Amino acid sequence: MRRIRHSPDEPAVGANGLLDRRLFLRGGAGTALALGALSSGSPAKAEMLKVEPWMKEPGSPFVGYGQPSRFEDKVVRVATNPPNAPGTGATRTPLHRLSGTITPNGLHFERSHSGIPDIDPNVHRLLIHGLVKRPLVLTLAALSRYPMESRIAFIECGGNGLQLFQKDPAPLNAQALHGLISCAEWTGVKLSTLLDEAGVAPTATWILAEGADAAGMSRSVPLAKVMNDALIALYQNGERIRPSNGYPMRLLLPGYEGNANVKWLRRIKVTDGPTMTKDETSKYTMLLPDGTSLQFAFPMEAKSVISQPSPGLTMTQPGLYEISGLAWSGYGKIAKVEVSADGGKSWAPAALQQPVLSMALTRFHMAWRWSGGPAILQSRATDETGYVQPSRNELITKRGTKAFFHFNAVTSWGVAETGEVKHVYA
Amino acid sequence: MRRIRHSPDEPAVGANGLLDRRLFLRGGAGTALALGALSSGSPAKAEMLKVEPWMKEPGSPFVGYGQPSRFEDKVVRVATNPPNAPGTGATRTPLHRLSGTITPNGLHFERSHSGIPDIDPNVHRLLIHGLVKRPLVLTLAALSRYPMESRIAFIECGGNGLQLFQKDPAPLNAQALHGLISCAEWTGVKLSTLLDEAGVAPTATWILAEGADAAGMSRSVPLAKVMNDALIALYQNGERIRPSNGYPMRLLLPGYEGNANVKWLRRIKVTDGPTMTKDETSKYTMLLPDGTSLQFAFPMEAKSVISQPSPGLTMTQPGLYEISGLAWSGYGKIAKVEVSADGGKSWAPAALQQPVLSMALTRFHMAWRWSGGPAILQSRATDETGYVQPSRNELITKRGTKAFFHFNAVTSWGVAETGEVKHVYA
Repeated sequence: MRRIRHSPDEPAVGANGLLDRRLFLRGGAGTALALGALSSGSPAKAEMLKVEPWMKEPGSPFVGYGQPSRFEDKVVRVATNPPNAPGTGATRTPLHRLSGTITPNGLHFERSHSGIPDIDPNVHRLLIHGLVKRPLVLTLAALSRYPMESRIAFIECGGNGLQLFQKDPAPLNAQALHGLISCAEWTGVKLSTLLDEAGVAPTATWILAEGADAAGMSRSVPLAKVMNDALIALYQNGERIRPSNGYPMRLLLPGYEGNANVKWLRRIKVTDGPTMTKDETSKYTMLLPDGTSLQFAFPMEAKSVISQPSPGLTMTQPGLYEISGLAWSGYGKIAKVEVSADGGKSWAPAALQQPVLSMALTRFHMAWRWSGGPAILQSRATDETGYVQPSRNELITKRGTKAFFHFNAVTSWGVAETGEVKHVYA
Repeated sequence: MRRIRHSPDEPAVGANGLLDRRLFLRGGAGTALALGALSSGSPAKAEMLKVEPWMKEPGSPFVGYGQPSRFEDKVVRVATNPPNAPGTGATRTPLHRLSGTITPNGLHFERSHSGIPDIDPNVHRLLIHGLVKRPLVLTLAALSRYPMESRIAFIECGGNGLQLFQKDPAPLNAQALHGLISCAEWTGVKLSTLLDEAGVAPTATWILAEGADAAGMSRSVPLAKVMNDALIALYQNGERIRPSNGYPMRLLLPGYEGNANVKWLRRIKVTDGPTMTKDETSKYTMLLPDGTSLQFAFPMEAKSVISQPSPGLTMTQPGLYEISGLAWSGYGKIAKVEVSADGGKSWAPAALQQPVLSMALTRFHMAWRWSGGPAILQSRATDETGYVQPSRNELITKRGTKAFFHFNAVTSWGVAETGEVKHVYA
């Protein structure tokens, strides 16, 4: 690895070019020199007098429901199932092309076991029954009269990152490797409010949640979680939930693996134990090295991934860059994210975008001067429980390579001298 | 006004049916009786065995960029300019059909002085010049290497609510009256970072911000605000800013009237005073009763509006409802929202959805038992500076009826015995 020189004006916080982010806030000569190179040579006056085509004539008229610019047509979800096969499959959020923490609704990841049902909200009902005094059958209009709550929460598919269990690093980008996570403001009715009204029997300990899709996707969830913070979500980022995210309603279980957040929710049955549905016995269990399986491991463990730079975003020239990424934990708030530019030999704390919300995506930032030499970029999250995101070796030692679900270890991006960024193991 | 009876189980917090929201959290018999009526009579088992068409066959396949359900095709922005006339005009966010605080990008309000320009982001440049040591010309790629910041912020058009200056209440809904406000997570580069790099001269006190639209929309902004929290916003709710919201970049001035948040931003000129552009002399000034005009009154004063129930959302039967709405202040956080069901004679504090963020939309909630009699619903916001949203009479006494901009007084919704909800003055 090439040795890089630090300017005395640049306070290093880690090896291989990691810099104190306050660098950018000082406006010193060092910064100006560094980033001044980014401006073109054109004199200000010439630039001011330029008249581009869109400055000459009126633009297009308004539309009722808007779309992204036509220049952003590459910013799409990518499906892993064959196109036009509406069976089981998933699409992934283009993490490498987004910033901030909210996922726009059109790009929220999707996972379906039988395509996207086209549900008529006027016909759809939510049934609450089982170990309750008064079964309830609720229309959407009835649900809309209950008190609503909102929270910004991530949903991550239990299988997100599964390619990293492979022996060799998959030549994929952040979207393909980790794009089964998204974050939105969800609004709906607390399930505890409805269960209180139905009157839960003292013997009740679990619920069954069933979807109205043709796969009848069903999961069992402990009653304690449900009474704590489960939401019957009706809105996603302000508008009604999107069809592929459960329209007209879904279960939201903050921090729990995506599959348990049952979409197209039609039925909650209060039970005295898990129902052992096909979706929690044949799937969504983790095969461990000792041959046993881990079942009902719901919360997604703390994890992080660098989204910029990442594979596909080639570095054009040495110089200052911002390293940015996402961190999250199904156990609460992110407490710390550390970044390494030397493959984990040294770490420096990243800045966390405020406010840091529990069980929501948290964006982190780190200043970096790329020397033009090789680097291995990594991020490592710590959540408020003190849990530290493991290295890939640590995770595999514990869970083996056949767990399939809940891959939350550190991801490594190798930066070559050409500026190319690749998925590597380190 | 009809007298209503309170159940002893229902803790009243205000006149005409305003109830303590904890009512819903107790699961008592009173609640169950009240809301049990919302469930249909069908027995649980029959409901469980129902098979709707979408449960019988696989749903539709995934798409790269998703859209709302076809059943939500009424949830659109409404334009006030003639259709297909791409000149000056606006579209309004359907506040009465949304919940939560984030506005989905497709429904963010729009205001344009010359249509929506179709800007090629590879050609677009941001020029920073004027009273600086080093003028900068920045490409989008260059900007993307700077440190990013995110914040959830509302943008409200200075003219939002102007119909309430009229002598008689306009027979319009929440969207038409107050829909020139939206809220998003904006991500971009702090303008202070760029100005520090450019090196601001000691004589500088203002900036000029100019758009690349054919109208050349331009506004002057005090340098102090710019150095404090102005953002060159590149992303809106995670993805690149939408064309009608300034693609590929806009100025974000948290809390300031929308017009100053210049879209399609192409030029920042650092100056020693306001430039007195056409957009801040012929427009966006408030004509006061004494014949003088208020110019450069940037922050939007504290305001609130009830979105549910509101005109167009007819009440179907007496009983429990949730009153819900939005509050905001360009001066900081919302400290309190009060709700009245008797036209402002009595007020009760509403619950505020957490976290309450500075200069972002805050949703408030209040439980209400509608007796079936007449009611006048109002909300009144107080911000963290102690400023209280005025009544319409108070505002008009101070600013007259010709101010046109910054109407922030209390809005009244009259509920008739038929359940119809109408805009009234009270």
